[in-house]
Amino acid sequence: MLFSPLLKRLKRGPQVILPKDFGMIVALTGITKKSLAVDAGAGSGWLAVLLGNICKKVVSYEWREDFVELAKANVKRAELKNVKIKHADIFKGIEEKEVDLITLDLADSDKVVVHAAGALKSGGFVVGYLPHAEQVQRFAKACNAAGFRNVFTIECIVREYLVREQGFRPENTGLTHTAYLTFAQKE
Amino acid sequence: MLFSPLLKRLKRGPQVILPKDFGMIVALTGITKKSLAVDAGAGSGWLAVLLGNICKKVVSYEWREDFVELAKANVKRAELKNVKIKHADIFKGIEEKEVDLITLDLADSDKVVVHAAGALKSGGFVVGYLPHAEQVQRFAKACNAAGFRNVFTIECIVREYLVREQGFRPENTGLTHTAYLTFAQKE
Amino acid sequence: MLFSPLLKRLKRGPQVILPKDFGMIVALTGITKKSLAVDAGAGSGWLAVLLGNICKKVVSYEWREDFVELAKANVKRAELKNVKIKHADIFKGIEEKEVDLITLDLADSDKVVVHAAGALKSGGFVVGYLPHAEQVQRFAKACNAAGFRNVFTIECIVREYLVREQGFRPENTGLTHTAYLTFAQKE
Amino acid sequence: MLFSPLLKRLKRGPQVILPKDFGMIVALTGITKKSLAVDAGAGSGWLAVLLGNICKKVVSYEWREDFVELAKANVKRAELKNVKIKHADIFKGIEEKEVDLITLDLADSDKVVVHAAGALKSGGFVVGYLPHAEQVQRFAKACNAAGFRNVFTIECIVREYLVREQGFRPENTGLTHTAYLTFAQKE
Repeated sequence: MLFSPLLKRLKRGPQVILPKDFGMIVALTGITKKSLAVDAGAGSGWLAVLLGNICKKVVSYEWREDFVELAKANVKRAELKNVKIKHADIFKGIEEKEVDLITLDLADSDKVVVHAAGALKSGGFVVGYLPHAEQVQRFAKACNAAGFRNVFTIECIVREYLVREQGFRPENTGLTHTAYLTFAQKE
Repeated sequence: MLFSPLLKRLKRGPQVILPKDFGMIVALTGITKKSLAVDAGAGSGWLAVLLGNICKKVVSYEWREDFVELAKANVKRAELKNVKIKHADIFKGIEEKEVDLITLDLADSDKVVVHAAGALKSGGFVVGYLPHAEQVQRFAKACNAAGFRNVFTIECIVREYLVREQGFRPENTGLTHTAYLTFAQKE
Repeated sequence: MLFSPLLKRLKRGPQVILPKDFGMIVALTGITKKSLAVDAGAGSGWLAVLLGNICKKVVSYEWREDFVELAKANVKRAELKNVKIKHADIFKGIEEKEVDLITLDLADSDKVVVHAAGALKSGGFVVGYLPHAEQVQRFAKACNAAGFRNVFTIECIVREYLVREQGFRPENTGLTHTAYLTFAQKE
Repeated sequence: MLFSPLLKRLKRGPQVILPKDFGMIVALTGITKKSLAVDAGAGSGWLAVLLGNICKKVVSYEWREDFVELAKANVKRAELKNVKIKHADIFKGIEEKEVDLITLDLADSDKVVVHAAGALKSGGFVVGYLPHAEQVQRFAKACNAAGFRNVFTIECIVREYLVREQGFRPENTGLTHTAYLTFAQKE
């Protein structure tokens, strides 16, 4: 698996967002070192750590206590002071305001879109990490209903290559899907 | 074309590195807001601007005077103080030391690898943006010869989707290749 | 566009099934020169012609009179005696029995699955050519309900390459989607 | 692995050409039940069997005696009378004339191209099954040198999908490369 050096000392718990999808989020939302990001659910905290190395501040919501502990431990291992793991239910609302980026990796991410619309600053992005096509449909519909503009969906496929004396070719087997990513920008 | 909001006000000159490939570089090298990045050739300065929004400092080499002017104008439009466009020939050497990331988008990027080896800090990455398989072979060979470890090559393919009432499907046509990316990490 | 020499003299009317998807159908259903194939809707008759060059006999249903004429003209141009364009409504039933392959390219292909189940011989395949994910869901559901086994869905992506003195690389732009293909084999 | 019912009873020896690549060959060369095909090396004889179910006649060259025996056994299991496994060295020449299709899956397939040029009928195709980019370069060069026209290279990628109650998505892992296919048509 392709890996980020930033994740080297981290423990892996529930399924994690891989570097390739994190890379797409960075590339297409234009977050910078001045950005405030909100993330849910924290899970192992990998995405929160990756975002924390780039953004000014990251707040990551997580409902399950065991994941809160795991994510906090990973943030500590990553030596980040600007990442807060918050034991709270994001389905009840987002407290932060003027947020630049909200990333959602939940079974029902579409139900958080209305809260995201209230928390984001103008020009900010909500991004859904959505394994199934049906989740994409619901998420995109929720974004349109909440008044987002510039709603688009992509999938990032990374092919690994063998580069050797005997020749250049793609690896024979590999990762073929993690999730679709739906982006929506606030007016 | 998928776009970064960071590039909105920039002018486009020579061929540019697209956000998807920038995203892979961020994701797999683990650069942060503490990083020093060196880039060549600057071209339109897009990659320098994208890196400048994340890294502490970016120095971008460019030999052609007209591109130096274009890149400088784009850095100004992006309102970045931490990006320096340097009118110099990177094939003659890299002056910066303890660099975290060196990105090379040149016809003969492999010839700069030996300079990259000297300029990078331990754990730092050189990344080649290489449209052709033959360039990948030469670049990877140069990295191995220069003592880099963890040399790997990928290709990032982004599929765009239509998500509508009538259904979910990929776009019928689109971008199918920009370049292979070869990464090499310094011991 | 990648093309089959068999289609060289044919006229193009409504959207056609491309050679790559025809190739997948041949490859995964195992039709031979002994096979009887049923196809609907005929459209331009391209798939019927492609199948007719391989199978013993092909019957292609088409409801629209103008398409019947177009498809018949194309069969004539292809000099095939074993392909019959049938002006009939396949939603009302399939008259042929002991069929080896039934290919469906209709807006509501799932509604023909029950007829396919009756017409196919044991081990025969019905294949849906389905542009959208939602059509795949309905088609696969209909196949399971009709008692088919071995129901699977694929997508065939063909990348074209430039192979030149200056190097080997994929084309920069190209076809990225035609349709998903769902296969189901009769018990 | 996606499979053809035609291969069900066959034994597997050396690496085989998969149905997806066979499908591309059928689709893009336009072979029919009237075609004469030559194949080398036979290996397990899978491609010879697949072609034999479609073409009028297939002759498959194989140098290694053990593979000749394996391929012959597989042809027998497939109950095909029109497929001949020939114990001969194709690098020394192709005896058949007016051939419609020649498929080459050898380490040095480019060295057989000149023989293919002599054996093919006008409009016929030679196809190289080439795992590495360097092999493609050599093969395409040999085709151009031998006076072939319409030389093109593709790669066929098949994605498999999960279609379930919980949703529609690609499989998480899978086959990502078998070989590049280079096609060349005789004037």
